Amino acid sequence: MESQPVRASTRLDSYVDRYAARTAGMTASEIRALFAVASRPEVVSLAGGMPNISGLPLDVVGGVISELVATQGPVAMQYGSGQGVPELREQICEVMRLEGIEAHPDDVVVTVGSQQAVDLVTRIFCDPGDVVICEAPSYVGALGVFKAYQCGVVHAEMDADGLVPEALQQAITATKAAGKTIKFLYTIPNFHNPAGVTLSAARRHEVLEICRREDILVLEDNPYGLLGFSHEPMRALRADEAEGVIYLGSFSKTFAPGFRVGWALAPHAVREKLVLAQESATLCPPQFSQMAVSAYLSGHDWQGQIKQFREMYRERRDAMVEALDDLMPASCRWNVPDGGFYVWLTLPPGIDAKAMLPRAVTARVAYVPGTAFFADGFGSSSMRLSFCYPTPERIREGVRRLAGVLEAEMELRATFGAGAPASGLEARSGYDAPSSDLT
Amino acid sequence: MESQPVRASTRLDSYVDRYAARTAGMTASEIRALFAVASRPEVVSLAGGMPNISGLPLDVVGGVISELVATQGPVAMQYGSGQGVPELREQICEVMRLEGIEAHPDDVVVTVGSQQAVDLVTRIFCDPGDVVICEAPSYVGALGVFKAYQCGVVHAEMDADGLVPEALQQAITATKAAGKTIKFLYTIPNFHNPAGVTLSAARRHEVLEICRREDILVLEDNPYGLLGFSHEPMRALRADEAEGVIYLGSFSKTFAPGFRVGWALAPHAVREKLVLAQESATLCPPQFSQMAVSAYLSGHDWQGQIKQFREMYRERRDAMVEALDDLMPASCRWNVPDGGFYVWLTLPPGIDAKAMLPRAVTARVAYVPGTAFFADGFGSSSMRLSFCYPTPERIREGVRRLAGVLEAEMELRATFGAGAPASGLEARSGYDAPSSDLT
Repeated sequence: MESQPVRASTRLDSYVDRYAARTAGMTASEIRALFAVASRPEVVSLAGGMPNISGLPLDVVGGVISELVATQGPVAMQYGSGQGVPELREQICEVMRLEGIEAHPDDVVVTVGSQQAVDLVTRIFCDPGDVVICEAPSYVGALGVFKAYQCGVVHAEMDADGLVPEALQQAITATKAAGKTIKFLYTIPNFHNPAGVTLSAARRHEVLEICRREDILVLEDNPYGLLGFSHEPMRALRADEAEGVIYLGSFSKTFAPGFRVGWALAPHAVREKLVLAQESATLCPPQFSQMAVSAYLSGHDWQGQIKQFREMYRERRDAMVEALDDLMPASCRWNVPDGGFYVWLTLPPGIDAKAMLPRAVTARVAYVPGTAFFADGFGSSSMRLSFCYPTPERIREGVRRLAGVLEAEMELRATFGAGAPASGLEARSGYDAPSSDLT
Repeated sequence: MESQPVRASTRLDSYVDRYAARTAGMTASEIRALFAVASRPEVVSLAGGMPNISGLPLDVVGGVISELVATQGPVAMQYGSGQGVPELREQICEVMRLEGIEAHPDDVVVTVGSQQAVDLVTRIFCDPGDVVICEAPSYVGALGVFKAYQCGVVHAEMDADGLVPEALQQAITATKAAGKTIKFLYTIPNFHNPAGVTLSAARRHEVLEICRREDILVLEDNPYGLLGFSHEPMRALRADEAEGVIYLGSFSKTFAPGFRVGWALAPHAVREKLVLAQESATLCPPQFSQMAVSAYLSGHDWQGQIKQFREMYRERRDAMVEALDDLMPASCRWNVPDGGFYVWLTLPPGIDAKAMLPRAVTARVAYVPGTAFFADGFGSSSMRLSFCYPTPERIREGVRRLAGVLEAEMELRATFGAGAPASGLEARSGYDAPSSDLT
């Protein structure tokens, strides 16, 4: 008989052959280690999508939660419904009303952050090989889910007004012509992550019309919709199409992410499946978290709080855009987002954002390379810059450092010519950021 | 062009054709409606697996959580690591040490209840058609997960000492001979849900030896291990085999389920995949919940609390067993569990527990029919009775009502002969209970 230690190591190796096919795509990115370095305090991280919650009144939050424990502790600490706490689902309908949505609490399913909603929707709809249409670029965390369920992703272009209807139509036509099954369009209409753009009102109708005609379900992911800087929330796609849209929302950016409370609003039949999927995944979402969020919504001026958040983020957006204007080489391009957390910046031709990242981290600034937001290796000349978390002063300092790294890179390139934008790195898809940078 | 309402209803119907293949098995059971009735206060529910947390000191819990918000609010309400809060993972290692496990916090992954751990392990290991070996009967919530991932389930018999090693060997041999791939053995060694039995110490070694020889991974699910009535916690399977066992634990029964904090302890390579799967599923488990549990563990005599829970549950177990002895027909059989929440009761030949359930609910008592705990339609003559939640008086009253229903059923049967044990009901598999009854 073989000895124990040998067997153990043999078994350890043999896990590789035991995993499900879907697990093959789950690999830690080579840039994860860089992000670990980037979390050091001396580094200005423009990478993370963490909301800045320092403005939350801890005394108010502490008060509502203490009262929750004292008055409803045995319920809050118990198992709950797989669909979520009824009172919270009613409040969620109030929140969605700000975007023109009229919905019934029965059609809301509470999820562990809206990330889990993406997971559950994909779980119930997608077989391996099915296609999801996504914007180009798209949210890295959603691309990770689609990959985990072995979906194909087909990207459709955006411009300053968001998803381009003609590009959407073309993507649908080409995918169908290739004999593939499209399960849904995944779209972030407001203050896009990572592109920062917003789908115009006119285009919302066009996108819905295309999806109706082509019989494509829409997955509308809207974590940032209430965080606009200059106008009232836009009308959601779901407000004009109840049967063909699954709407996802979250309290992570309008209150706090640590409770992990998001939701899906779905047509009735789909909602039933989502509840069964939720029960299978977690039995029920955390009752305590849900009741804490519910108590906060009842016990605090949450809309006033969102107004404060918007002002704070607008100030940071301004700081970033001013710094970019002042400091970045003229050959860079970026957008000026009207809400949300992100600026999408495109580098001069030939500069690779991923290849440059180690040098940026050495210079004490971090960002997420554009390739993370494409399933197909594109995006190498772009990056996502987040202005949500650091102070305006730190943002300016971060941009200053980034400009310095970029200038050195451009100088090298001018001296040595079009070197080697490492195509091996560019060709990798997807899952490039650790969890706090996925948001 | 067709009009909007017509198209809408067409699309609603057409969801049926759009779901993933895995979704076909996700259907609400016909007995769910009965459980909705069973949750009325006049019904004694012996169905639910909800822990009785009325003994928790709300002032202590409220105190640690208030302090958490006041002193660490901005961290507790923020995103966290996909693997879970480091301090909590250290405390989890302390908890597992009570069962002889020596583990490193690096190998622990926090999950949204241990239900999510079952989901994530299945996600990374199981392709459609892969087989999981389960005890007969087995936990309904795990069977639901295996079904959702399109696994085959092969049951292996238990007796009063838990899983029978020869039955395990036979199940493995037969499954391999049929050319199928076994991904793991799913086992609940302590105070089994639903069977109430515990795997003897001698058999633990036998089961491990078989799994080593056959190269089968063990998924050891242990929510009740610290809730024994007459002896110290038994040594976990994981304590004697680190490489071949994934161990799942939970705070739902030893503290409170409303925080949804469970965990998986896995070999290093598997742990890495679990973290990636967790990030894809939720980004990170709820930071607030984790820190609340951690604060409770540091700030309270949690082991003393578990001792109180054990005494409370033992009293209820005694009440149930005494009532069964006093009131049930002699032709029924049941076990006397030495811990946990459940008694497994087998009815006289010819009486179908599922067919009898509507009459039981009418008589204001509820249980979970045995078929819920089998993937293959067996179990029709058995039921799970939970003694965890109702008071001893209510338990006795519930058993009294159940005995009355059963006697009427037996009388009918004596009068009219072996009628029709509805085979359509028996043939259904799995997912028979709503979330709070799944635990």
